[in-house]
Amino acid sequence: MEDATAYVRDLGQRARKASRELDRLDPGLKDRALTAMADRIEAEANTILAANREDLERARAEGLDSALVDRLELNADRIAAMADGLRQVAGLPDPVGAIDELRTRPSGIQVGRMRVPLGVIGIIYESRPNVTADAAALCLKSGNAAILRGGSEAITSNRAISRIMQTVLEEVGLPTGVVSVIDTSDRAAVGALLGMPEYVDIIIPRGGKGLIERVARDSQVPVIKHLEGNCHTFIDADADLAKSAEVAFNAKTQRYGTCNTMETLLVDRAVAGDVLPDLSRRFGETGVELRGCERTQELVPEAHPATEDDWDTEYLGPTLAVRVVDGMEAAMTHIAEHGSGHTDVICTESYTKARRFLREVDSSSVMVNASSRFADGYEYGLGAEIGISTNKLHVRGPVGLQGLTTQKFVVLGDGQVRG
Amino acid sequence: MEDATAYVRDLGQRARKASRELDRLDPGLKDRALTAMADRIEAEANTILAANREDLERARAEGLDSALVDRLELNADRIAAMADGLRQVAGLPDPVGAIDELRTRPSGIQVGRMRVPLGVIGIIYESRPNVTADAAALCLKSGNAAILRGGSEAITSNRAISRIMQTVLEEVGLPTGVVSVIDTSDRAAVGALLGMPEYVDIIIPRGGKGLIERVARDSQVPVIKHLEGNCHTFIDADADLAKSAEVAFNAKTQRYGTCNTMETLLVDRAVAGDVLPDLSRRFGETGVELRGCERTQELVPEAHPATEDDWDTEYLGPTLAVRVVDGMEAAMTHIAEHGSGHTDVICTESYTKARRFLREVDSSSVMVNASSRFADGYEYGLGAEIGISTNKLHVRGPVGLQGLTTQKFVVLGDGQVRG
Repeated sequence: MEDATAYVRDLGQRARKASRELDRLDPGLKDRALTAMADRIEAEANTILAANREDLERARAEGLDSALVDRLELNADRIAAMADGLRQVAGLPDPVGAIDELRTRPSGIQVGRMRVPLGVIGIIYESRPNVTADAAALCLKSGNAAILRGGSEAITSNRAISRIMQTVLEEVGLPTGVVSVIDTSDRAAVGALLGMPEYVDIIIPRGGKGLIERVARDSQVPVIKHLEGNCHTFIDADADLAKSAEVAFNAKTQRYGTCNTMETLLVDRAVAGDVLPDLSRRFGETGVELRGCERTQELVPEAHPATEDDWDTEYLGPTLAVRVVDGMEAAMTHIAEHGSGHTDVICTESYTKARRFLREVDSSSVMVNASSRFADGYEYGLGAEIGISTNKLHVRGPVGLQGLTTQKFVVLGDGQVRG
Repeated sequence: MEDATAYVRDLGQRARKASRELDRLDPGLKDRALTAMADRIEAEANTILAANREDLERARAEGLDSALVDRLELNADRIAAMADGLRQVAGLPDPVGAIDELRTRPSGIQVGRMRVPLGVIGIIYESRPNVTADAAALCLKSGNAAILRGGSEAITSNRAISRIMQTVLEEVGLPTGVVSVIDTSDRAAVGALLGMPEYVDIIIPRGGKGLIERVARDSQVPVIKHLEGNCHTFIDADADLAKSAEVAFNAKTQRYGTCNTMETLLVDRAVAGDVLPDLSRRFGETGVELRGCERTQELVPEAHPATEDDWDTEYLGPTLAVRVVDGMEAAMTHIAEHGSGHTDVICTESYTKARRFLREVDSSSVMVNASSRFADGYEYGLGAEIGISTNKLHVRGPVGLQGLTTQKFVVLGDGQVRG
C-alpha cells in the first residue's frame, strides 16, 4: 500500500514538472513525437501482440467474461487503428496558445483569452489497451501531461505500449514525465491518483458506470465524467413519418452497446397508429425486444409490458422501451424525469416545436431529425474524442482537445494604469 | 438543525423547478423584472435603510470590527449604485440561447453549441448587502435560479431587499423561486446548501479566504472559487523604466485591499539600481512599507528585510515585498513558486520576452505593461462580474454572465442516419 502510494505520488510530481517544461518547448515536438510513436507501434506490432497474448491467456485462465476479453484483445487491425489514431491527432491544429476575442477597451488595454493546457490529466480506464495510446496522444497534443491507469487485466499490453512511448519521448527530446503509465495492479494506486490535487488537475474515468461512480465519489480532483446514456427519440405529431422511422431505427440498431443508442422511443398519440405497427415489425425482425406502455401494447400486441423501471434503464442491448405520449410537452416532461441528459432527439417538421425542443431539453446533445448515434466527437468534427461529458461545468457532450484546455486572460498594454 | 436543513432543501426544490420554468418564459421578462427591481429599490430606499440601521446597531453592539461594519453599511449612494447595477445588467445582451460555431458536417447534419444556464446557483457571502441584489441580477439574467445566503450580520437588510425582489417577480409573472434569500442565521443552512447537488449546480462563495476554503472543503457541489491574489509585477531589464514605475506604483497603491493589487515587485538586477531608489521613495511617501531581499536592501536602506513568508503573503494593505532577480527566467520561477495564479505582470519592451511571459506564466490573467488592477470584469468588458475564479476548470479569471452558463450541442438534421 505504502509503496503504491509513494510510487504514484512520484509519478505525479514528475508529471507536474514535465507539464511545465512542455510549455516552454517547441510545439512541433509534440507532433513529431506522435508520428514517431505511430511508426514505432507499427514496427513493434509483434512485441505488442505478444504482450497482449499474455494478458489474454491470463484473462481466459481467470474466466473473465467474453465481452471483456474481446475489448482486451489486440490484433493487426487494432494496432493499425492505434497508429492511425496517433497520426490523426498529430495532424489536428494545436489548440494551445490560440488567442480569442482580443478587444481594445476604453482604457487602451487589449484584452483577450489564451487557450492553455489544464496541466496534468489522470485517465482511469478498463481493459482496452488502445486507450493507452489514444488518451496519451490527446493529452500530449493539448499540452498536458498524462498519468494513465489501465485495468490490471491489460497490464502487460499497456506496459509494452508505454515502453514504446517512453522511448520516443526520449528520442525527440520531450520530458518522459509527460506520459506515465501506472505500472502496478495495486488498487491503492487509484486512491493515490485521486488524492493528489497538487499534482493532478483533472481525472477522466472511462469505463462502466460502476467505475465512474466510484471515481467521482472518491476523487479530490475534479472529474469529467460520463455517467449514463439514457437517450430518447420523440416522434412528434408533425413528423415526416418515413424519415422518423429511419432515424429511430438507426438510433436503436446501428449499434446496441454505445452510450448514444436510443433506449426509449416516445411517439405522439396522434401518429402512433401510423408509426408503431410498421416500425415494431422492423425492430422485431432485427431482434429488438419492445417494452411498451399500455397504449403501445394496444397497437403492438407483441410488445412486453413496460414497468416504471424501463423508463430509467440504459439497456445497452437489443431492448427498447416505447411510450405513447400526449404531445411534445408530455415528451419533454418524460425526458426531464427519466433522461440522463445525454442525447435526445425530436423528429418533427414543425419549426416552432423544433425550436422549443432544442431550447428546453436540458441534455448535452439535443437533435432535430437526426439519429442520436451522431453524438460523437468525430461526427461533430472535434477531430478526436477522449470521452463524452454529462457534466454541466467546463465541458458538456463529446470532449475533444478543447475540453482538455482552459483559457486565461491576456492583457496587452502600453503602460496603462487604473484611474 | 433539522428545521434549517428542511427549509433549505425546500428552497432548493423550488429553485430547481423555477429554473426549469424560466427556460420556457419570454426572455424579455427577465429584463423587465431587473428594471422594476431597480425602480422599487430606489422607491423603497428608506425601508431598506431602516432595516440596514437595525443590522448596524446590532453589529456595533456586538463589537464587530469597523471594516466589517463599513462593508455592512448602506447609504443613499450605495442604494443608487445597487439600482444602477440592476439596470446595467438588464441592458446587457442575453447570453442564453446563443448558438456558436454552427457547421455543416460531411454527413449533412449541422452541429453547433447553444449557450444555456447552469441551472441553480448558490451564492454564499459575507456582510455586504448589495451583493444580494447584484448576485441575484446576474443569476437571473443568465437564466439561472439563485439561492443566496448572506452573513447573519446583514440578515435584516437582506430580508428587506429580498422582499422587494419577491414582490417584483410576482408582479412581472416570473416564478418567485428563481431568487431565494435564505432567511435564517442557523449555520446548518450552509451545510444544507452545500449538500444538495440534486438541486444546486454550482456554489460561488464570496468573502475572505477562510470562508472560501471552508466552502470548497465541505461542498458536494462544484465551487467557483477565488482563493488568493498574490499578484506580481516584474520589471524586466528591457523595460521602459518610466512606464514601469507608473504601472508598479498604480498596481500597489490605487487600492490596497483588492485581490488584484500587487503584493510582490520583482526587478531585474540590471535595472534595479535605476528603478528602485526613486520608486521606493514614492512608495515611502505614500505610506507603503517595503520588505526587501538583500540586494533590495543594498539599494533601499529603509526597506525591512523580507523573510521567505513575505513572498507568500497577500498583504491586502500598504506593505510590499521587493525582490531583485537575475532575469525573466528567475522572475517566472519565483512566480511559479510563490504566486497564487491570479494576476501577474511583466513590464518590458522586448517582444520576445513579452511573448514568452504571456505564454508561460500560469495565472488567470497575464499582462504586459499594464497595472494588475485592471484584472476586473468591468475593465475587461464582461459587463458585470460575479467574482474572479482562480479555478482552472470551467472559468478562469473575472467571471461575468458567460461563466454562469454552459454550452450544449445542438444538431439540425433532415433525417440523417449513421452508416
